[in-house]
Amino acid sequence: MDIQNGQADVPSGARERILQTAHDLFYRDGVRATGVDRVIAESGVAKVTFYRHFPSKNDLVRAYLAYRHARWMAWFIDALARHGGGPDAIVPAVEEWFRDARYRGCAFINSVGELGGVLPDVIEIARSHKQDMTAAVAAVLPRSRQRAKNAQAVALAIDGAIVRAQFDASPDAALSALERIIQSLLKV
Amino acid sequence: MDIQNGQADVPSGARERILQTAHDLFYRDGVRATGVDRVIAESGVAKVTFYRHFPSKNDLVRAYLAYRHARWMAWFIDALARHGGGPDAIVPAVEEWFRDARYRGCAFINSVGELGGVLPDVIEIARSHKQDMTAAVAAVLPRSRQRAKNAQAVALAIDGAIVRAQFDASPDAALSALERIIQSLLKV
Repeated sequence: MDIQNGQADVPSGARERILQTAHDLFYRDGVRATGVDRVIAESGVAKVTFYRHFPSKNDLVRAYLAYRHARWMAWFIDALARHGGGPDAIVPAVEEWFRDARYRGCAFINSVGELGGVLPDVIEIARSHKQDMTAAVAAVLPRSRQRAKNAQAVALAIDGAIVRAQFDASPDAALSALERIIQSLLKV
Repeated sequence: MDIQNGQADVPSGARERILQTAHDLFYRDGVRATGVDRVIAESGVAKVTFYRHFPSKNDLVRAYLAYRHARWMAWFIDALARHGGGPDAIVPAVEEWFRDARYRGCAFINSVGELGGVLPDVIEIARSHKQDMTAAVAAVLPRSRQRAKNAQAVALAIDGAIVRAQFDASPDAALSALERIIQSLLKV
């Protein structure tokens, strides 16, 4: 599973081809910077086919975020398992993502920044994405009465690391700050 | 001092009027969504005056971020001092900001999301903003050999809280997660 290429779900029909093209362009260049005409041209579908599936750009944006959510969650849950499935899996899992050449931060954080003011659905979708991410974090933390609160705090720190890894030339500082936070939360 | 209105620096000349208008529009609606014509119209300057000060939109974006940086840092340092100037000042300081009706997250995080791919200067400017923010955090943490590392971790958690407070209907969850992180870092 690759978050960027979605190789786990090879596109079959026109809808999937459009979605994967929109995903790659929206994630890389931003939603506002990417016109619908470009998505149509690069996905190689007829205009009429495109509009049958996505009557407006906002429909495409919502479908992109649902698609990204499914792909990202599948990758995250798999990466946590591959790194041992405990709290020590969190930093190496996000590190894989931060070191990907196509890393451009969190699609949901970026979309709220771009569109939160004009398309309130995006805020709702981002919130529910972060709830699922927090649940996946909780699942690898030790069972304790503090687990839910620790998961909230770790998820918030992951968001901080996501943003920092987007600015910094290297994700090293973000990863070590995240590690420091996780260790101190679990020690208390 | 008000981060949103910049009352501490009442605009005098045309350049300041343009900058304050651009600030309010860029911060509220986003940089891409705000055309130069709108900034010209709302700041009430002549087109020729505008272009004398800002030959291109990118010049205006850079000036906006420098202006925002100065205003935000002045507000943050002042708010930390008003709340006692110790580590317990951090949460109430950011809370003031998160509860402002015009809160739309961090101008630098939002601009990197919108423009990072096309205007690499923005990433550089955001990085230096976060360095200054981290230094202001370090200044209120207890002196110890861990101070610099704790400041990095707290600053990263503040970024996570900034992003969460942008999604959530209320900033309460972000503030309590941030508080939990600061307390556990300083306890270790």
